[in-house]
Amino acid sequence: MATLKDVARESGLTVGTVSRVLNNRGYISEKTRQKVYRVMKELNYQPNEMARSLSTQRTNTIGVIVPHIVHPYFAKMIDSLEEAAYENEYKILLFSSKRKDYLEEKYIEMCWRNRVSGAILFSGLVHTEVFKRLDFPVITIERFIDEATAGIVCDNYQGGVLATEHLIERGCRHLLHIGGVNQMQMPGDKRKVAFEKVCREHGVNYLILEPDDEYYTEMDYYAIIRPVLEQHPEIDGVFASSDLIAAQVIQICREKGIRVPEQMKIVGFDDVNIASLTTPRITTIRQPVKEMAEAAVSALNRVLAGETVAKEMRFPVTLVRREST
Amino acid sequence: MATLKDVARESGLTVGTVSRVLNNRGYISEKTRQKVYRVMKELNYQPNEMARSLSTQRTNTIGVIVPHIVHPYFAKMIDSLEEAAYENEYKILLFSSKRKDYLEEKYIEMCWRNRVSGAILFSGLVHTEVFKRLDFPVITIERFIDEATAGIVCDNYQGGVLATEHLIERGCRHLLHIGGVNQMQMPGDKRKVAFEKVCREHGVNYLILEPDDEYYTEMDYYAIIRPVLEQHPEIDGVFASSDLIAAQVIQICREKGIRVPEQMKIVGFDDVNIASLTTPRITTIRQPVKEMAEAAVSALNRVLAGETVAKEMRFPVTLVRREST
Repeated sequence: MATLKDVARESGLTVGTVSRVLNNRGYISEKTRQKVYRVMKELNYQPNEMARSLSTQRTNTIGVIVPHIVHPYFAKMIDSLEEAAYENEYKILLFSSKRKDYLEEKYIEMCWRNRVSGAILFSGLVHTEVFKRLDFPVITIERFIDEATAGIVCDNYQGGVLATEHLIERGCRHLLHIGGVNQMQMPGDKRKVAFEKVCREHGVNYLILEPDDEYYTEMDYYAIIRPVLEQHPEIDGVFASSDLIAAQVIQICREKGIRVPEQMKIVGFDDVNIASLTTPRITTIRQPVKEMAEAAVSALNRVLAGETVAKEMRFPVTLVRREST
Repeated sequence: MATLKDVARESGLTVGTVSRVLNNRGYISEKTRQKVYRVMKELNYQPNEMARSLSTQRTNTIGVIVPHIVHPYFAKMIDSLEEAAYENEYKILLFSSKRKDYLEEKYIEMCWRNRVSGAILFSGLVHTEVFKRLDFPVITIERFIDEATAGIVCDNYQGGVLATEHLIERGCRHLLHIGGVNQMQMPGDKRKVAFEKVCREHGVNYLILEPDDEYYTEMDYYAIIRPVLEQHPEIDGVFASSDLIAAQVIQICREKGIRVPEQMKIVGFDDVNIASLTTPRITTIRQPVKEMAEAAVSALNRVLAGETVAKEMRFPVTLVRREST
């Protein structure tokens, strides 16, 4: 493979001049620039970013640690992060912790050893002391860590209000809320807080189901939802904390001969592809995933440039009406 | 941040000895080894993998270029590749080409500039000359490139046979096949070849719908499928080339009052999460995604170790019966 020296020799210039062309530093005549580019192309020269990273101590790489990849919310988030990274000239090193604390900790260490420019973290179980040691910025999405550089959330409380009020407006009087991640203090918990408050204000009966962590890890809530619907045939409306859960509620209703939306109305959360692929399609609370991903990459970028960014950014959510209500 | 020198000084050893402990080279007494580990921990020393990569010219990174991230097939594939990479001590640099040839070419170049150990590619549009220049192994999944080190496919032909025979056994006499990616020679095309052959052998009427590339890019086939079902009310069975398409066929049937599976039977392809999340759940052809991803990473690993690997690996598929037939 051609080196910088080869390019210099072939173009009759010094290594310093070729390097200045490559790094866009100092004055270089257009003629010289064109010559260097031509020779680089002829020799098929590719700058070694690894070597360059070592001298600049920056890799332009963002470590992204997610608990799931297959889960449609995280698939969409990864997609949006990859796009935002590309637009800001970063690359994504992707790690899936599968909700195991030792894996998450190991991946954070791998980010460190590989000198990432920064990391983006989602819900996870790592003790916060780990973050105190890091020398790169950490942005969290839908997770509280005091030690993080910045945290990005959607307006979970407002989402809970919109979903619950919509179900009540559509005539539901016996509501069920199915939570997402349990056993942790998560921003998403505010969906439940809002649900309870709105139910009380409207004098509507309600139940709250908080699945253990294992259901979230397996992404399969069937075994915990079905008995609740059987024991409580009065339930006529469900606010599920994800579209994935809402899709499974639709399946259980079909099995039990409960018509959606006539006898049971269902609202999901996230507005990811599954919400548009079920029959009926799912009414849901839309998180602005693309904008949240862009904000995360942009925050990293600005912190690395020495700027100060907001410690917390909360994005608005909207109700998307579809067939399930 | 502590350096190798700091560790050496603090433990009263030479840099060479500490380096040997770190790289597991040569004889080191257990006592010395323990001492180095203890000091590394005390000083919170982290080996700089970037610097090490530069000397070994290996980054232990695999560039993965997919056309989609949100598409459930690719989400599952990325998840399985990440897991296989972890088990083989590789990291994943993830790129999404969004079906744009200039992006795919740019990402291949980025893999090169970042000295990846190898790359894994899916369906894409890049001219094969690009691959001749690369100095790292390239493994393809569900894509033919003569220049690639190895290609991994599922048995698309057998999948087409299983799906079509199943529909005929279940009583269908007017079949529709909906293809996936058009405008390219792809291994997946064999699903269609098998479909036609089985229909002819059984004297069953059939139609083939080959959506333009834009539908695949947008992952939304509604506008092309609905008119076909309206113009051909005799159709009583659909073999869709992905579970994503099958989910959309279910939605159109519901809108048109066609009962699934009573009046219309549907078989998908892939067996990814969407197949289990629709109502009714989708009968499908299962690709062994996990095994294919493991084979891809393992092939890269073996090529890098100087071994010879099969140029083509074809994995068996199975019929998974669910509610849509």
